[in-house]
Amino acid sequence: MPPLKYGPDGLIPAIVQDAASKRVLMMAWMNETSLQMTLQTARMHYWSRSRKQLWSKGETSGHVQRVVRFAIDCDADTLLFEVEQTGGACHTGYASCFFQTFTPDGTALAINEAKVFDPETKYAR
Amino acid sequence: MPPLKYGPDGLIPAIVQDAASKRVLMMAWMNETSLQMTLQTARMHYWSRSRKQLWSKGETSGHVQRVVRFAIDCDADTLLFEVEQTGGACHTGYASCFFQTFTPDGTALAINEAKVFDPETKYAR
Repeated sequence: MPPLKYGPDGLIPAIVQDAASKRVLMMAWMNETSLQMTLQTARMHYWSRSRKQLWSKGETSGHVQRVVRFAIDCDADTLLFEVEQTGGACHTGYASCFFQTFTPDGTALAINEAKVFDPETKYAR
Repeated sequence: MPPLKYGPDGLIPAIVQDAASKRVLMMAWMNETSLQMTLQTARMHYWSRSRKQLWSKGETSGHVQRVVRFAIDCDADTLLFEVEQTGGACHTGYASCFFQTFTPDGTALAINEAKVFDPETKYAR
């Protein structure tokens, strides 16, 4: 692997895409440790900027992301992971965090999909 | 549109995906002005962190990106644009900036595609 260009905060953005449908599921941040954990386990691990801690996707919800393959971009400053997602990627219950879409001029479109899980029961307590 | 959460540098990441193939093409940064320009023209505009200036995709190469639709994620801190890409998105000549892929443990895979344009002639002088 080429050396990666982490930002001044030591983080690199990781785009996550469903390996089968190619839908973009989420974007989160990795530091060097979370990337190492991801490569070692083939399960997505991130760095939470708000909680300032390592987290693994699914640790609370069970909605883990198994890595199928990944790519590093031409500038080595962005990662793209293709994953198999258990349940939904979004804490709101939707399959993808990008469920709210807009026309090119910024008009909101109706959300045309159902939640894949109930966040109330999933994240309660 | 909901209010967006720009970072402390006034920027928000914009993931760009081919509207037809769903391939992720690139990730770049927008400030408020570049987003406004994008919405007004339906052509992708970004903020260059290295050159510290607004740029429109294709201004040098002709490889413009027409916006088909876009999404704002659940945290309102990441944008996802689906576009029609003229030519290739990557300055190296590949269709996508994510042309170098790896197995889940970080082993590089052979690049299994040809460049869609010659960057030497495209960006020369």
